[in-house]
Amino acid sequence: MGCLKVSSKSSPASVAGAIAGMIKDGSSVEIQAVGAGAVNQAVKAVAISRGFLSPVGIEICCIPSFADIVIDGEYRTAIRFSVEPRAGFAVIAAADAAAL
Amino acid sequence: MGCLKVSSKSSPASVAGAIAGMIKDGSSVEIQAVGAGAVNQAVKAVAISRGFLSPVGIEICCIPSFADIVIDGEYRTAIRFSVEPRAGFAVIAAADAAAL
Repeated sequence: MGCLKVSSKSSPASVAGAIAGMIKDGSSVEIQAVGAGAVNQAVKAVAISRGFLSPVGIEICCIPSFADIVIDGEYRTAIRFSVEPRAGFAVIAAADAAAL
Repeated sequence: MGCLKVSSKSSPASVAGAIAGMIKDGSSVEIQAVGAGAVNQAVKAVAISRGFLSPVGIEICCIPSFADIVIDGEYRTAIRFSVEPRAGFAVIAAADAAAL
C-alpha cells in the first residue's frame, strides 16, 4: 500500500496520476493531508483520478478518517483517505471478463 | 436522495448526524461544498459519520466529483460527494442477516 502526502501546494492532476497508477497496479492508496488547503487538493486529486480510471472500467471510492500525527514535534490531526476500487464495480468487471 | 450544502462554517458533527440519519433510512446522500474550508468540513463530517454508522454495521464510502454551479450570478466549481454504503459490506450484512 502506498501513502501519498498531499499539501496545499500539491498539484491535484499530478496526485491524480499517481493515484490512478497505483490503483491500476492493484494497490490500495492512502492519502494524508493536514489542513483545509491540503484536504481540498486531495479531494480534487481523487475526483480527477476518477476520470483516468473510469475509461478502463475502474470506479473508485474513498474513505476518510482522522489520524493523529506529529509534525516537527507538534501534534496535528491529519485526514487520511483510503482510496480503493468499488467492490460492486470490480465484481461486475470480473464477471464481464469471465463472460468473454 | 438528499443534498446537503456544507459551508466552511458548518459544524462537521451536525452534518455527520444528518448523513448518518439519511444513510440509515436507506437514502443515498449528496454533499455539496464550495471552497477549501467547506470541502474540509464536508470531509470531516463524512469521517465522523463513519463512527455513527459503523456500530450498526454500515460502512460508507464517498465519491467526489466536480460540479459547475452558479452562486449569485457567478460561476463556481463545487465539489460534490456522493456518500453511499459500501457494496461489499452491505452484501455481507445482508448475508449475516439471512443466516440468523
